[in-house]
Amino acid sequence: MRALVVDPTLRFAADHPDPAIVPGESIVRVSLAGICGTDIEITRGYMAYRGVPGHEFVGRVVESSNPDLRGKRVVGEINAACGRCSFCRADMGRHCPDRTVLGILGRDGAFADYLRLPDRNLLALPDSIPDEVAVFTEPFAAAHELFEQVRLAPKDSILVLGDGRLGAMVAMAMAGRGYKPLLAGHHPEKLKRLSSLGIRVRMEREVADRFDCVVDCTGHGAGFLRAIELVRPRGTIVLKSTAAAGASLNLAPVVINEITVVGSRCGRFAPALEAMERGGFDPRPLIDAVFPLEDGVAAMAAAALPSNFKVLLRAS
Amino acid sequence: MRALVVDPTLRFAADHPDPAIVPGESIVRVSLAGICGTDIEITRGYMAYRGVPGHEFVGRVVESSNPDLRGKRVVGEINAACGRCSFCRADMGRHCPDRTVLGILGRDGAFADYLRLPDRNLLALPDSIPDEVAVFTEPFAAAHELFEQVRLAPKDSILVLGDGRLGAMVAMAMAGRGYKPLLAGHHPEKLKRLSSLGIRVRMEREVADRFDCVVDCTGHGAGFLRAIELVRPRGTIVLKSTAAAGASLNLAPVVINEITVVGSRCGRFAPALEAMERGGFDPRPLIDAVFPLEDGVAAMAAAALPSNFKVLLRAS
Repeated sequence: MRALVVDPTLRFAADHPDPAIVPGESIVRVSLAGICGTDIEITRGYMAYRGVPGHEFVGRVVESSNPDLRGKRVVGEINAACGRCSFCRADMGRHCPDRTVLGILGRDGAFADYLRLPDRNLLALPDSIPDEVAVFTEPFAAAHELFEQVRLAPKDSILVLGDGRLGAMVAMAMAGRGYKPLLAGHHPEKLKRLSSLGIRVRMEREVADRFDCVVDCTGHGAGFLRAIELVRPRGTIVLKSTAAAGASLNLAPVVINEITVVGSRCGRFAPALEAMERGGFDPRPLIDAVFPLEDGVAAMAAAALPSNFKVLLRAS
Repeated sequence: MRALVVDPTLRFAADHPDPAIVPGESIVRVSLAGICGTDIEITRGYMAYRGVPGHEFVGRVVESSNPDLRGKRVVGEINAACGRCSFCRADMGRHCPDRTVLGILGRDGAFADYLRLPDRNLLALPDSIPDEVAVFTEPFAAAHELFEQVRLAPKDSILVLGDGRLGAMVAMAMAGRGYKPLLAGHHPEKLKRLSSLGIRVRMEREVADRFDCVVDCTGHGAGFLRAIELVRPRGTIVLKSTAAAGASLNLAPVVINEITVVGSRCGRFAPALEAMERGGFDPRPLIDAVFPLEDGVAAMAAAALPSNFKVLLRAS
């Protein structure tokens, strides 16, 4: 099959081996895949990953021991957990120490014609959700994760820091729950596009208030320091991006102002799909370009441009 | 009056001006005062404080416009808030941006014959609580603060990192609430003394489990990094000490493991006093020495020794 491969540099392979069926897992033919900041980090060495990257996808099940899945249009949770450890038993397979993660850790990913995932990871899509929306399920679910971790009051003032993909997902997830977050960033043209989606936006340097909750979607260590400045005492900072670089950090303000810092990573797909079905979530204006799979190396370069929100790969 | 003064080095003054009575505030004759890590940091430049340090005390009201307070044996909340701002109206005067703080910020403290505090900061002591216990009210209240910030389940595994004053207070506060924390530190002789108070202890290098909750009472930046190693995914780290030094910190594990980090500073006195009245809290074995006020410079040096838990100053 065709695939992008990290080995350790990124290349396109026309003849990568097809995934073989194993009991309890299904083979999915990928239709559309999304490029995420983590994929770009992986091509730069993050997780020392080797193999096919990609974890945002929509596709169709072509082989499965589960007849209910065969032929279904699906999205898939990216963490393949052992199903037996204490985390798995507590419905926290996303933290299973023995997990593999699609395109990130020990499991070939979605930038290919086919991928394999456990049957229990796959969710059939209702017809009402088109491919170009469904491909956002994984980042939209990651945005919803914070609702499971943080109690927000309806009147809470919320600041989303960062005008990239992740900030957009978080702001849209919050709007879907009735919150009115302010999104702040450095790029006027991106803020303008986000504003056209109905999101309240402001240039970050013009933000001077203190917020009940600040969600750091900047993707760099300095975002956390800025969040500390912008959160009120006893407020909450949600860290949504793995700022891979260490920062010289003074945590004294966290203690003095009794701030709560919540690390928040990926989320269950069900709440995101429910929000999509309710309607009102249309991220398609965020799509900058759709590249064919064989142009994946160029697509990845395009996704890394700060001016772009979302670049997709079409496999079939 | 006699007082210790930071100016900016610490010195003893035999003739420091007495505090003058102002409306709504009382004058307290200090009996006993405790030296805390923050006091030591202040003599090293923390908060750029100038004046009388000290914020842990027990004393007797000698002047007050409130007849209910006159002559009473009291302890006092250390944050003197404006009473009008949004934080004060939400009963969070401890975060009032216009507050002064006894011996820490804009208000002379307790290492003196007399101090002044707002009437509303003072709490009369029941006879059942002796001075040598009451002088621990402030750090014991700080330890109780975490119960207002973090939901602990009865079965949660809890690790207190740090075998100093603060770790001892946190472990004892937890024991009073029915939890069975493990306290870990580097000093065998201190662990032995803590063990004699009924606290479960272990040498830190021997701790290998992952805990639901880790309370960092180490007082240095490396404690946070160790806490990240010892907390389970989706667990909680409570930062109880203002680690004044910046540390080179990679927050990626906080996000990947979805850790919650809660900064926790000082607390309301009432829950601490209630716990003292219920009995079972006797920190007197932690007292290493009681110095007369005029030997305060030597007392501060003694308090800074890692082998000591608590050094007190007796003013009257």
